[in-house]
Amino acid sequence: MTGDVRLADDPALYFETHAFVCCNRRPDGHPRGSCAAAGSEKLRDYMKARAKEMGLSSIRINSAGCLDRCELGPCVVIYPSGVWYRIGSTEDVDQVLEQHIQAGGRAKACMIDE
Amino acid sequence: MTGDVRLADDPALYFETHAFVCCNRRPDGHPRGSCAAAGSEKLRDYMKARAKEMGLSSIRINSAGCLDRCELGPCVVIYPSGVWYRIGSTEDVDQVLEQHIQAGGRAKACMIDE
Repeated sequence: MTGDVRLADDPALYFETHAFVCCNRRPDGHPRGSCAAAGSEKLRDYMKARAKEMGLSSIRINSAGCLDRCELGPCVVIYPSGVWYRIGSTEDVDQVLEQHIQAGGRAKACMIDE
Repeated sequence: MTGDVRLADDPALYFETHAFVCCNRRPDGHPRGSCAAAGSEKLRDYMKARAKEMGLSSIRINSAGCLDRCELGPCVVIYPSGVWYRIGSTEDVDQVLEQHIQAGGRAKACMIDE
């Protein structure tokens, strides 16, 4: 078994950019916390609305169940690059949309580099 | 804006294989149907349990909100390859786990090739 890689005759990507925002919620006071308890649902809604306003195309922004990086949340992972961000505020979301998705670079200030 | 691609200095993939099973549920009788109404939640549970039994490592199997391919569901998309499958039964899940994730090929019989 190796990691998941594209093969030469795979169909075109259905979404060229596919972001998954963790919206898992644990009870208040849980030692690991949770992305929803840290505000991820509103940030997901903001990200979807803002991406639309910016006219970003061939992108899908999804909710996801627990991405298992609770301590670092609210988390988003973007595929196929597989880059993770902590989106703690609408400003962080703006940076991800502008610097990563629109410009094709990285939003270094909120990137999870571990 | 271009599609989302890995850059040379991106961190290693946190999950080498990351599967997202759509678990969106629409009301019964909705014209588009929904993956949960087509049984995706039980198939996700089966996929998680079976992957564990098979000893597959560095894989995460997640629930996702609506992946917007409702008519084709129950759907799973696997990243970073970006390949989609219709998992209509536990046999389909077995094929995806064995042929795509374990062997690194494609489970052609249930692949969504459009």
